[in-house]
Amino acid sequence: MNILFVMYDQLRFDYLSCAGHPHLHTPNFDRVAAMGVRFTEAYVQSPVCGSSRMSTYTGRYPSSHGAQWNGFPLRVGEVTLGDHLRKLGMNAYLLGKTHMNVDAEGMKRLGLAPDSVIGARQAECGFDAWVRDDGLWGQGPDGFYDRKRSPYNEYLKSKGYDGENPWADYANAGVDDDGNIASGWMFMNADKPANIREEDSETPWLTSETIRFVDEAEGPWLAHVSFIKPHWPYIVPAPYHDMFGANHVPGAKRHPAEREDPHPVYAAYMSNRIASAFQRDEVREKVIPAYMGLIKQCDDQLGRLLDHLEATGRMADTMIVLTSDHGDYLGDHWMGEKDLFHEPSVKVPMIIYDPRAEADATRGTTCDALVEQIDLAATFVEAAGGEVPGHIIEGRSLMPFLRGETPGTWRDYVISEYDYSVTPMRETLGVSADDARLFMVYDGRYKLMHAEGGFRPMLFDTETDPDEFHDRGDDPAYRDVIARMYDHLAEWGRRNAQRVTRSDADIDAMRGASARKGILPFLVDGSEVPEAWTEKYRGRARQIHVKQEAPENG
Amino acid sequence: MNILFVMYDQLRFDYLSCAGHPHLHTPNFDRVAAMGVRFTEAYVQSPVCGSSRMSTYTGRYPSSHGAQWNGFPLRVGEVTLGDHLRKLGMNAYLLGKTHMNVDAEGMKRLGLAPDSVIGARQAECGFDAWVRDDGLWGQGPDGFYDRKRSPYNEYLKSKGYDGENPWADYANAGVDDDGNIASGWMFMNADKPANIREEDSETPWLTSETIRFVDEAEGPWLAHVSFIKPHWPYIVPAPYHDMFGANHVPGAKRHPAEREDPHPVYAAYMSNRIASAFQRDEVREKVIPAYMGLIKQCDDQLGRLLDHLEATGRMADTMIVLTSDHGDYLGDHWMGEKDLFHEPSVKVPMIIYDPRAEADATRGTTCDALVEQIDLAATFVEAAGGEVPGHIIEGRSLMPFLRGETPGTWRDYVISEYDYSVTPMRETLGVSADDARLFMVYDGRYKLMHAEGGFRPMLFDTETDPDEFHDRGDDPAYRDVIARMYDHLAEWGRRNAQRVTRSDADIDAMRGASARKGILPFLVDGSEVPEAWTEKYRGRARQIHVKQEAPENG
Repeated sequence: MNILFVMYDQLRFDYLSCAGHPHLHTPNFDRVAAMGVRFTEAYVQSPVCGSSRMSTYTGRYPSSHGAQWNGFPLRVGEVTLGDHLRKLGMNAYLLGKTHMNVDAEGMKRLGLAPDSVIGARQAECGFDAWVRDDGLWGQGPDGFYDRKRSPYNEYLKSKGYDGENPWADYANAGVDDDGNIASGWMFMNADKPANIREEDSETPWLTSETIRFVDEAEGPWLAHVSFIKPHWPYIVPAPYHDMFGANHVPGAKRHPAEREDPHPVYAAYMSNRIASAFQRDEVREKVIPAYMGLIKQCDDQLGRLLDHLEATGRMADTMIVLTSDHGDYLGDHWMGEKDLFHEPSVKVPMIIYDPRAEADATRGTTCDALVEQIDLAATFVEAAGGEVPGHIIEGRSLMPFLRGETPGTWRDYVISEYDYSVTPMRETLGVSADDARLFMVYDGRYKLMHAEGGFRPMLFDTETDPDEFHDRGDDPAYRDVIARMYDHLAEWGRRNAQRVTRSDADIDAMRGASARKGILPFLVDGSEVPEAWTEKYRGRARQIHVKQEAPENG
Repeated sequence: MNILFVMYDQLRFDYLSCAGHPHLHTPNFDRVAAMGVRFTEAYVQSPVCGSSRMSTYTGRYPSSHGAQWNGFPLRVGEVTLGDHLRKLGMNAYLLGKTHMNVDAEGMKRLGLAPDSVIGARQAECGFDAWVRDDGLWGQGPDGFYDRKRSPYNEYLKSKGYDGENPWADYANAGVDDDGNIASGWMFMNADKPANIREEDSETPWLTSETIRFVDEAEGPWLAHVSFIKPHWPYIVPAPYHDMFGANHVPGAKRHPAEREDPHPVYAAYMSNRIASAFQRDEVREKVIPAYMGLIKQCDDQLGRLLDHLEATGRMADTMIVLTSDHGDYLGDHWMGEKDLFHEPSVKVPMIIYDPRAEADATRGTTCDALVEQIDLAATFVEAAGGEVPGHIIEGRSLMPFLRGETPGTWRDYVISEYDYSVTPMRETLGVSADDARLFMVYDGRYKLMHAEGGFRPMLFDTETDPDEFHDRGDDPAYRDVIARMYDHLAEWGRRNAQRVTRSDADIDAMRGASARKGILPFLVDGSEVPEAWTEKYRGRARQIHVKQEAPENG
């Protein structure tokens, strides 16, 4: 069986028709949901691109692997999904974005050649890169944000889009009334059609690459197909740019209570530049229709891909996963972007289709088990026929749910983390780099956010306050709940996360082994153990024969 | 400056005359203490050889590096003391024991050749091995415990000690009345002289190697001189074997209260084979004098080494550290060996002599700051002229104390950990491998032991109960204390342990960097930022030129 592991960037869990969106029709996402299981309580382990992905690609929490924010290199030697799958005879390919930053210093320290297969896999987070493009070709006074080559820009140039950076000039910009570039970086331009042929824009390009991959690659394979959209810049080519309008934009889910005596960390975020932009109706009214257009385009392109899988017979032997690395506030909770832990940010779509008969019983159903995106790594290992290495992968396999079973035990809470040490909010709040860290604990009803550095927590009771408007973090009535959530966090903090060189099976095999190799520090007289154990320690004592440096006898 | 980092194995903190031992006179340990500082509250991060050393050699907690018990390989790529020092132009050499088990699987995964310099250093925990010998050449039905070569056994053979394993037959055995080997594995033989010339026994041998090293090595160097003694087998050559006798053996520090309703983990340990042996007076009366003899020999040999340093001028430019990897219950608390967290097990000697003038003010003093042995890695980095990489090394430099300063902040508690998943106690207690873990939190007065798996804690109030006889773990009067200790443990569990690829300085350098590289996801119309930031996103829009596959014009 193959695994088509599709990830969109910044796709909210509720911007799909199968998730109940009133205006955005996504028949192809729905198609996969109808063939498989849609997990309705799926959470990423860090609500920002880099650390979310590093967690998903290792199956480990940010606090376990250490690549806690965008651009923090994943340390050399960290075991990845690709490593696990190759052991099982399945190759792991990348098409698109990982946001992986290689640990160049670590590779140098270990003498790993970047241009070896091993070195390349370290740099690509364990994947073999069919095509690697992280999708953000920003350019400023200090040069390009991403210094790697861009296969997408090279594609555009080969198609006649001129200039140094057609991604910026064409794919992510419109044309204003004066004939000038109307960059997609500016929200006011979000409603313009991107100045590019629709089939040359990013999502169709990567989909074509994926179709080519499906035709050419030898299985069994996992393909991580990782689209940059609907992540900003928020601009999309015709006909998607005006498919939706202000009349499709819901009122922002926000409440004055949120701005009354807010948690200091939340307050700092609510007053940052992007939150301020999304507090303006005119920004939401332009951006959200563009965002919806981008998702609609994603859905159409998904349809192309699914049709191709059907036509080639691959639908019958390929597991399909559709998910996202985090959400987008879009003005809810007075916020833009992601970063904090309200539902629009930290919850993601998670749709899994397993073609095998064992998954027949659950087709078209939803599952509300508490899911962490790191569960995918475990799920893929099991799907590829392996046993989940629980001493390395911290997620748990979702296969039982696909089979319609109830696992004997399951988690009581999900965890997510956020390291804001690189952001301006750290300065605003005056905390050290070490203390600029947040932890979410969510048990299905209560959601706690702990902020290191001496802050009080935030707490939502999503049963009485499903909109997460009312922070109970300093409410004495919730003291016991908060204590219980902190117990969960403390338990998680003690988890056995780093014993990565010894599996449980290794541990079992070690027990008692040293005694049979003569390590016997508990014998009074030797009679306590079988004679065979002490055989080497018995026998005639021998005289010490002094070996002279110079022989005494001639 | 050089650093002579001497470690004894299983040397109790109180078995030195400078620590107050009434009978064991250790003038050379005292000599170094008189020249430097003796830290009286020094704790190892795991009270067992392997994990204690892996922590000390990385400056990281067991939960951070994952090599949580003897034989668990330290994962490939983990940064070691040797790595830190070499960056500063100081080489790091090993003479003796590390208990390092190489991560062969990880080396293979990364394609590291074991016989390269890098591969060798991975295998030797970051050290360049001048001579590597882990000192325990046990042999049983399943072969040798240690499958590496033994330079010590090779030395013995070259000196005329015959047989396959002269370590076992001569160095660690006496001769009984019938002329048979009286193995040191059997406590009843502890009072026999080892059947070896004193100068050929382990401690003199390694001391001679160290003297040779001092003469031959080019500085600046750190030399980790790591003796196996006074670790068992408890047997020592003449004249040390009868230098001490039963009359020098103190009553065991144990109390009936400890056996009344004991904590289940403690109960399991108290009933194991080695504890049972040490509950017998005749065992203590034989073993402890041998143990004292071994330490006396260590002290005499230390004298040899110190004299040589004086004679060669090295005393004036060499920092000296004397410590141990853990203690030895010797029957206190109804226990033998180490493993748990009472003082005789988890507290260690820590004597530091810094030859430089900046340390003059503290010569001959004691310091009662709460010290973790992982502080040594930080201390050595600072001593070698470097800045402590706080994103990797979790210990803190002790240099301020050597200079007589009070650091601005210091820790409020020390942590130690123990993973008993490989031991029979895990079976006795019926816990999973993951749950077979213990945590100590000690704040200078209260000592908490948390046992994963749903157990109540143990708690000692060392102010009212300095002997640690009265476990308050289920005493309601101590509920607030216990809660406070658990807060410490929870805070420690949230520590920023894995962000090893980004220092605080790296973090500071990253701030704001992406905006100047054109990542601008917050612009309403572009006027919010300097024109230079959006320069690449402005200009004349260009027509899309359709590049035909087949040219339309001839």
